[in-house]
Amino acid sequence: MRVDLINTGTELVLGRTVNTHLSYLGEALFLVGLRIQRQICIPDGDVIGEVLSERMPHSDIIIVTGGLGPTSDDITRELISEMLGLELHFNEAVADNVKSYYALRSRPFGEGGKRQSMVPAGAIVLPNSHGTAPGLYLPKTEKNPHLFLLPGPPRELYPMFEDETLPHLRKIVGQTDVEAKEWKFCGMGETELAEKLEPSLSKIPNLEIGYCAKTMEVHLRCVGNANALSQADSIVRDSLPHQLVSNDLKLIEEVVIELLKAKGQWITFAESCTGGLLAHRLTNVSGASSVLAEAHVTYANDVKTRLLGVNSKSIEAHGVVSSEVVTQMAEGALKVSGADHALAITGIAGPTGGSAEKPVGTVYLGLASKDAETHAEKCFYPIDRETFKWRTTQRAFDILRRRLLGYPLIEG
Amino acid sequence: MRVDLINTGTELVLGRTVNTHLSYLGEALFLVGLRIQRQICIPDGDVIGEVLSERMPHSDIIIVTGGLGPTSDDITRELISEMLGLELHFNEAVADNVKSYYALRSRPFGEGGKRQSMVPAGAIVLPNSHGTAPGLYLPKTEKNPHLFLLPGPPRELYPMFEDETLPHLRKIVGQTDVEAKEWKFCGMGETELAEKLEPSLSKIPNLEIGYCAKTMEVHLRCVGNANALSQADSIVRDSLPHQLVSNDLKLIEEVVIELLKAKGQWITFAESCTGGLLAHRLTNVSGASSVLAEAHVTYANDVKTRLLGVNSKSIEAHGVVSSEVVTQMAEGALKVSGADHALAITGIAGPTGGSAEKPVGTVYLGLASKDAETHAEKCFYPIDRETFKWRTTQRAFDILRRRLLGYPLIEG
Repeated sequence: MRVDLINTGTELVLGRTVNTHLSYLGEALFLVGLRIQRQICIPDGDVIGEVLSERMPHSDIIIVTGGLGPTSDDITRELISEMLGLELHFNEAVADNVKSYYALRSRPFGEGGKRQSMVPAGAIVLPNSHGTAPGLYLPKTEKNPHLFLLPGPPRELYPMFEDETLPHLRKIVGQTDVEAKEWKFCGMGETELAEKLEPSLSKIPNLEIGYCAKTMEVHLRCVGNANALSQADSIVRDSLPHQLVSNDLKLIEEVVIELLKAKGQWITFAESCTGGLLAHRLTNVSGASSVLAEAHVTYANDVKTRLLGVNSKSIEAHGVVSSEVVTQMAEGALKVSGADHALAITGIAGPTGGSAEKPVGTVYLGLASKDAETHAEKCFYPIDRETFKWRTTQRAFDILRRRLLGYPLIEG
Repeated sequence: MRVDLINTGTELVLGRTVNTHLSYLGEALFLVGLRIQRQICIPDGDVIGEVLSERMPHSDIIIVTGGLGPTSDDITRELISEMLGLELHFNEAVADNVKSYYALRSRPFGEGGKRQSMVPAGAIVLPNSHGTAPGLYLPKTEKNPHLFLLPGPPRELYPMFEDETLPHLRKIVGQTDVEAKEWKFCGMGETELAEKLEPSLSKIPNLEIGYCAKTMEVHLRCVGNANALSQADSIVRDSLPHQLVSNDLKLIEEVVIELLKAKGQWITFAESCTGGLLAHRLTNVSGASSVLAEAHVTYANDVKTRLLGVNSKSIEAHGVVSSEVVTQMAEGALKVSGADHALAITGIAGPTGGSAEKPVGTVYLGLASKDAETHAEKCFYPIDRETFKWRTTQRAFDILRRRLLGYPLIEG
């Protein structure tokens, strides 16, 4: 089925607000087996009529967001009713909802309230649990495809989509037993992942397969019935046990926290060039405090020496960006903190500070553990500073994850 | 002039990647007096041809992003050349750039490199300083409006747009004396800012004014000629000297680094609930190493005591989230590090860990300095964990900025 998404909002085309509707609805629609063939963003006002006329002949389902509110540029409801020759009727139930919402906030019902209570003939009202204007569903007729008019603000749109819109879409699609599942992988690219999995996955009937490359991570997403997804899960687990980070949407930070918790172990960090991003990412997860007691950004050489006990002669001999120094950083952090594992990072984030021998993007990662030999490795991520920091921490978390699972730290 | 923006990318319509191009380009185009009349997002593949045919008759400038890379679904360059009857020629200069980029990463030039080095007849090459595929500018002819083909990845797109595309757009628009200026403010809301500035700013002729609320920061943006902007700048400086963070796009992190550098001073951090975000934000700026030698995430109580010398009796008596503890954290960090200033943070990020007396969102900030009395304050940000962390660090940087400038830390 062909789906179009039309987002209205002058603030969107002026670039003041990031349009997250496409990202949200694209994902949500995929889960019922639908894909957006085209998304169009336009300013508030008359142009919505022009776009609808253009797209209606080419589309089975059109979702319009925005333009349902009380102000003068909110004309989606009126314009579509006129286009399709549908009379607008005052709806008491909708008006009651608007009235009680306004009353709570000491605002008068007025003209704006009245306009939001008008419903085109034949439309199904989609109640708004987080605002005033209801959504409207105009089922397919000879004149129009299935039309969903939804509110613009995400906090109104998201619950209305999940609770009120998806059931209608499932009926339209006729797929009520279809679910989605996502697997996250570290340590391989999108192409390699597809080459490894595609031959087996493509044999499962009625399974839709999609890949998505993130920074140092690849996601596989499949849509199908429970049986097909369970087959896919077995194939993934058998084919790529070491690279599979999660099959339940968990982030790698969450995965390492769970693994550490299960063992009752603690982690600490000694970061140089990543400047706190490891700690920041881990502490974005609620519950990080049960595996992290302390972490350090040891930016200057003398701090590496004073705090972690790195030998200043090693720094002189090998440079601060070296296997020797990262090893001492990790082992020093382990000792100082009493943690069970310590990740250390030293490198050149750039854009300055590189040399011929150690260009910008060079970075050493170290992992010291109470129960294993210290691991040190060199990586090279010649890219902008923030992406460099992200990639480096991603690899660091993956080394830790592999150690906690007893997997090889470097895939052979 | 009518501007269309076409974003290609299957990952965008599948909702896996938020499309930030519209937000970025909408803002950037506004600065040269252009507004996007329509933005269209479509999957990779043939549909780009269909959309271009539809939009070319209605548009003066079309910007296309994505589809210039080396893989088989990157067909923007080839498809447009075919549509417009333009021959593709191998371009040595482009090939050299692609080759050196690949060489650095030990990747072969191959078919992908060759395809990216092809340039349609009559096109102006827009060099790519952050990747391989160059952008292409096809000036207006009888067959086509001005066409700009730009890369999809933001880290390639943004610099190419600013350095290589804007000069062409300024020529097309013929507005060479119009510029834009942006002011960033901390410590006040959008409404308050507008109330303070609007009466004076609105008297300046030919000045376009816009406000934008960010997290704990408000931006004012004006578009006009140099004279109008200079008048606006005087008004802003006179009206809100303490709240003005920058008038040259600098982030608050960059501003505090510059202020510290100018004084030859050092900063250190002792973070609890923000878990390294202060350090991460500061070290996102190249040159942070000249003001930051070390920073610490002291998550557990005993680490606050061991590392920073916080009295465990104070923790018992007042709780770890208290004015007393944050003061001791800041003063301890100052002493341990030998820095000139130390920012400390302790609070309850949530979603768990709150109490009736200290609900989730409660946070104490402390600033100790060699040359001033220690400041401690309580803030309350009851919001999701990540936004809580951001708000708290934003306020922390602002306290530091104010101290470095000799301004009152709390606006009276």
